[in-house]
Amino acid sequence: MRKVKWAVEYLSDSQKLVSHPEEKKSLWKGQYRLLHVEIGCGKGNYSLEMARKYPDELFVAIEKNESAAGIAAKKFDEAMEVKNLFLIHGDASLIDTWFAKEEVDILHLNFSDPWPKKRYAKRRLSSASFLQQYQSILSKYGQIQMKTDNEKLFEYSVLEFLKAGFLLDDLCVNYRREPHEEDAITEYEEKFIANGQPIYRCVFKKEKENETDS
Amino acid sequence: MRKVKWAVEYLSDSQKLVSHPEEKKSLWKGQYRLLHVEIGCGKGNYSLEMARKYPDELFVAIEKNESAAGIAAKKFDEAMEVKNLFLIHGDASLIDTWFAKEEVDILHLNFSDPWPKKRYAKRRLSSASFLQQYQSILSKYGQIQMKTDNEKLFEYSVLEFLKAGFLLDDLCVNYRREPHEEDAITEYEEKFIANGQPIYRCVFKKEKENETDS
Repeated sequence: MRKVKWAVEYLSDSQKLVSHPEEKKSLWKGQYRLLHVEIGCGKGNYSLEMARKYPDELFVAIEKNESAAGIAAKKFDEAMEVKNLFLIHGDASLIDTWFAKEEVDILHLNFSDPWPKKRYAKRRLSSASFLQQYQSILSKYGQIQMKTDNEKLFEYSVLEFLKAGFLLDDLCVNYRREPHEEDAITEYEEKFIANGQPIYRCVFKKEKENETDS
Repeated sequence: MRKVKWAVEYLSDSQKLVSHPEEKKSLWKGQYRLLHVEIGCGKGNYSLEMARKYPDELFVAIEKNESAAGIAAKKFDEAMEVKNLFLIHGDASLIDTWFAKEEVDILHLNFSDPWPKKRYAKRRLSSASFLQQYQSILSKYGQIQMKTDNEKLFEYSVLEFLKAGFLLDDLCVNYRREPHEEDAITEYEEKFIANGQPIYRCVFKKEKENETDS
């Protein structure tokens, strides 16, 4: 993404930006029912729409890219009525310094960078060291919801999640064949839908809810 | 499939047909290195081509439909040089009466009937009662290879295999993006490839080969 000057300048003044997320560790949820975290929110449409859909739940969007984070920040600030939404500008490899053990209920990975070259596999948000952190910050019945248009990232991720001990709860190789009103559509997703490309989605749980579910 | 009179009549005279498969139980493999079983071989192209590719391994093709089985039988008989190939005409729900515990090394499910209606879910070849039988007849390091064009059958099957305790070894949402010379193409598969439709494939193992694989 090209540098967007106004967005970079805007970012630090945003009302929704949490500049020191480590200070919120274990304190995020407050009165909210569930804590959602989106890693790599891009321009922020997904978390904003989800926060609107679920006003009793808290959404924290993470974005590493300064320009994208600035654009998301402005969008979040303009949605003044939406109180249940925050932004972290930072690298998700620090995620376990921002969230306490078992603090997060639902992790969202939407159209993450596939890092197709093997030598960059460790940068994929579904690679082992990230998954270890997700295991730690996810609540007992927490889950990870992942969407992607990238075949190879999807295949890789399903295998990695299972290897890390997560349980597959749902798998979809054409997520938008049904409407899914309960879920928001990201900027990328809109383009892929327009092009008729399939959206792949998988949902993993940390553990079985109880014996009768199996 | 419409009834094909000549095929039905041909079937019982076939040299490759095993009329009493229960009598071969625990005796199938003989000098062969591995035993492959294809459930629902249709007109038989897949097993025939695989038997040609792997002359040291034994292939047993199962087909319930009498006309399809008859067509496969004729094809198998005409391939006189192919000795490592047999046909069973019967219903796969009897599979554990034909094969002994841990006798089968690789099970192939190719473009199985999706039985989309929920009330017929038990007829799907990846439903729980079939999977229980596969667990029993598969050898310690045995595997199941499944290919399908059907999105929902694929999604259902991956979840069912995992629920039954199989381990996901490979997952592919567009199997033919690479050539895969090691695998044969079925009659259905050819049509889907010609139409540009994706082929879904998953491979499950019965258990981990050893600790270092995990």
